Amino acid sequence: MNIMVENIVEALSEHLEQDQISINQTIRELHGKDESYHSISLPDVVVFPRSATDVSNIMKTASRLKVPVVPFGRGTSLEGHVIPYENGITIDFSLMDKILEIRENDLLVKVQPGVTRTQLNKELKKYGLFFSVDPGADATLGGMAATNASGTTTVKYGVMRDQVRDLEVVLADGTIMHTGNLAAKSASGFHLNGLFVGSEGTLGCFTELTLKVYGIPEFTTAARATFPTVKNAVEAVTSILQAGIPIARVELVDESSIRQVNHFSETDYAEKPTLFLEFHGNEAGLTQDVEFTQEIVKDHGCDDIQFETDNTARTKLWDARHNLAYAYIHGNVGKKMMVTDVCVPISELADAVIFARQELDAIGLTGGLTGHVGDGNFHALLMIDMNNPEEVLKAQNYNEKIVLYALERKGTCTGEHGVGVGKQKYQAAEHGEALRIMEKIKVALDPLNILNPNKIVKLESDGG
Amino acid sequence: MNIMVENIVEALSEHLEQDQISINQTIRELHGKDESYHSISLPDVVVFPRSATDVSNIMKTASRLKVPVVPFGRGTSLEGHVIPYENGITIDFSLMDKILEIRENDLLVKVQPGVTRTQLNKELKKYGLFFSVDPGADATLGGMAATNASGTTTVKYGVMRDQVRDLEVVLADGTIMHTGNLAAKSASGFHLNGLFVGSEGTLGCFTELTLKVYGIPEFTTAARATFPTVKNAVEAVTSILQAGIPIARVELVDESSIRQVNHFSETDYAEKPTLFLEFHGNEAGLTQDVEFTQEIVKDHGCDDIQFETDNTARTKLWDARHNLAYAYIHGNVGKKMMVTDVCVPISELADAVIFARQELDAIGLTGGLTGHVGDGNFHALLMIDMNNPEEVLKAQNYNEKIVLYALERKGTCTGEHGVGVGKQKYQAAEHGEALRIMEKIKVALDPLNILNPNKIVKLESDGG
Repeated sequence: MNIMVENIVEALSEHLEQDQISINQTIRELHGKDESYHSISLPDVVVFPRSATDVSNIMKTASRLKVPVVPFGRGTSLEGHVIPYENGITIDFSLMDKILEIRENDLLVKVQPGVTRTQLNKELKKYGLFFSVDPGADATLGGMAATNASGTTTVKYGVMRDQVRDLEVVLADGTIMHTGNLAAKSASGFHLNGLFVGSEGTLGCFTELTLKVYGIPEFTTAARATFPTVKNAVEAVTSILQAGIPIARVELVDESSIRQVNHFSETDYAEKPTLFLEFHGNEAGLTQDVEFTQEIVKDHGCDDIQFETDNTARTKLWDARHNLAYAYIHGNVGKKMMVTDVCVPISELADAVIFARQELDAIGLTGGLTGHVGDGNFHALLMIDMNNPEEVLKAQNYNEKIVLYALERKGTCTGEHGVGVGKQKYQAAEHGEALRIMEKIKVALDPLNILNPNKIVKLESDGG
Repeated sequence: MNIMVENIVEALSEHLEQDQISINQTIRELHGKDESYHSISLPDVVVFPRSATDVSNIMKTASRLKVPVVPFGRGTSLEGHVIPYENGITIDFSLMDKILEIRENDLLVKVQPGVTRTQLNKELKKYGLFFSVDPGADATLGGMAATNASGTTTVKYGVMRDQVRDLEVVLADGTIMHTGNLAAKSASGFHLNGLFVGSEGTLGCFTELTLKVYGIPEFTTAARATFPTVKNAVEAVTSILQAGIPIARVELVDESSIRQVNHFSETDYAEKPTLFLEFHGNEAGLTQDVEFTQEIVKDHGCDDIQFETDNTARTKLWDARHNLAYAYIHGNVGKKMMVTDVCVPISELADAVIFARQELDAIGLTGGLTGHVGDGNFHALLMIDMNNPEEVLKAQNYNEKIVLYALERKGTCTGEHGVGVGKQKYQAAEHGEALRIMEKIKVALDPLNILNPNKIVKLESDGG
């Protein structure tokens, strides 16, 4: 333990209990990576706050010592967001995992940042409510807010940012503030909720979140539809959206990915581009939506569509989609998954998916395409051997090609995974002059550059 | 014309045509007020840009001369947003009124800031599309984005901020940048769309907006329901929302306001608290929604509910709501309207409306209550004689009482009208430490404080 770490621990001990501070190697290793392929880097110290006051004291200490700080939920980020490349302090929010208040009449909940989405949904179910955002991982709500997470229901219910009514935030200097209020809308002051959501720990640490929740829909119908080509499938989605059908989920899984699922799960799904759909509403409305959707998909060459309304049958119908990442990961032991994450305007989606498929075939790596196609967001899942530099390079070049394709069409380099370190090199190309404004905001709010430094924006003179 | 104004005009003339610059007294007077009761103050010069380049040149000139700049749409703001209390240059966007692009497949439009919402909707109708945000006035879309406007459809479609996919913004120093992209979602960088929407001209001037539009609903049903008390009416709304009925509009008009409409329009609506409702969707779904709604409102004591589906009949059914402000203004010639605008958590709404009514009765001014009750946002419309200092003071005290009531219940001082100068005194109480962050952002983006100075945030050292 070098002298600097000793200083940090000593300073932290003034306000925290001994069991809230760890320099244990295993603990540090657990906080030195996320679920991505990005390289590992360990924090010097991991702290476990129990309250906003604890976090405020940690930030005051970090400011005084000019030590970098990384907030950490469950480490499920996919672009290296939580990896402390400058070392320093990692704040693990696992002890702040209480659901503080359920305001049924306001359709709001107040939670601590360490609550996970499944933990919240389990509790909400007792009230006939649910929280809508469903990224792949069982992430913490603090982490989901920090990365503006989204998922399969975004096409109907919106992204994480749309669900955040208020955040309690601890700023770089330890100040505790609130970004919003409990009203359903407000025209008062700058939109700090929106600014802090998606800031990836670079502007502040969240210590409390007030989130929108929804009544569990009266009626749910799921569907699975196969198409001769990806283009047919995507064009069917465009038509469904154009028709104003308030679809709750619409996911594409390509032919290769269905093949991977069949291979891994010993199933026999038709190996064709497949759409997985879900509809939420009242029974009569859904019946009409489903009829209309059937007509639309048939017009786009759909060769088979199956519907289910019963809960168990719906889950089974969607199995291939649910098992997709699992089938790739467990079907390619020893390899790491790299996931592209662009989002394009819907009108560009069919061509973008075809381009991504062709380029993937050209490089010859194992992988497939899936997407939240109602939003124009799709992923290529690539399985790569990290010890094979050629494969790594191929995958990186592929990712870059997909990003540049999306940016040329006024899309974004990341639809839902965030910037972290992986998408930082595209920030200038994507945002242009706006990146200067982001840098100015970062400097104004974190002048010492101690909050998750070098994520999203990279300041020239690094004070961290 | 004093020498300073001469200097400004001369400098502006380097880049603009003579007919784009006016120091005419009548023109200046038209830009010295909005639709509120706030006092008048004239700009020194009014300019009429035709392009982002024009606006950039204006901002460069203003920066060089350190002259305040106020962007101006149609002057329909309600809290003095566009009144140039520091004089200087007003940028009138009326020449930038083109609809630039309609991307049907993406459900997006690109417009210049001077396009009004009815102008846009007239054009969109040809494509079976509509733009959802409907504040009372036929405001410009640039102004609506600057104030984060909302209206009767917000309960279903969201506020202005929810519709903005990208803004072209001219910053204080003349830099032109974009805040977003055309993808339906993004996790890339800080959320500048959200920050600039609602910034009321204090962070930049909008020169182009890309906005979400919607397909005109297949089927629309309108309803009007009367209740014995305001409490019954509001509680019925809470139950409708709780039940997950995707209501598109739900407006409350109180007894006194219906009386005012009857008196002015020679109608004979039942003088009772009244809800005006609208449902958008497919026919079967709406039929079921309407049945369910009928049950709910009956449970809350509704004594009469009428439905209409035909377009003309629906408009007639809603007449009393549409004519409300008109009935007050034209029924009280010589008086000015002051409008309160708080928004509270839905669970607090019934009590808040009752409190507002009781306090209004207590001060004895003419006025009534109306509200976008699905959002918890309600207005008291007060008719005041601006030459009677006692009435003005009464109205101001009343407004303050309503604001403080809302803030105590974690609501906001303004649900949709914005801060301008009228709600500035409540910013500290509402935002606390967060106001310091807003100030830091303002200083970082507009260090000379020339962009609509002293609106939203008031900086201690005023460089404007």
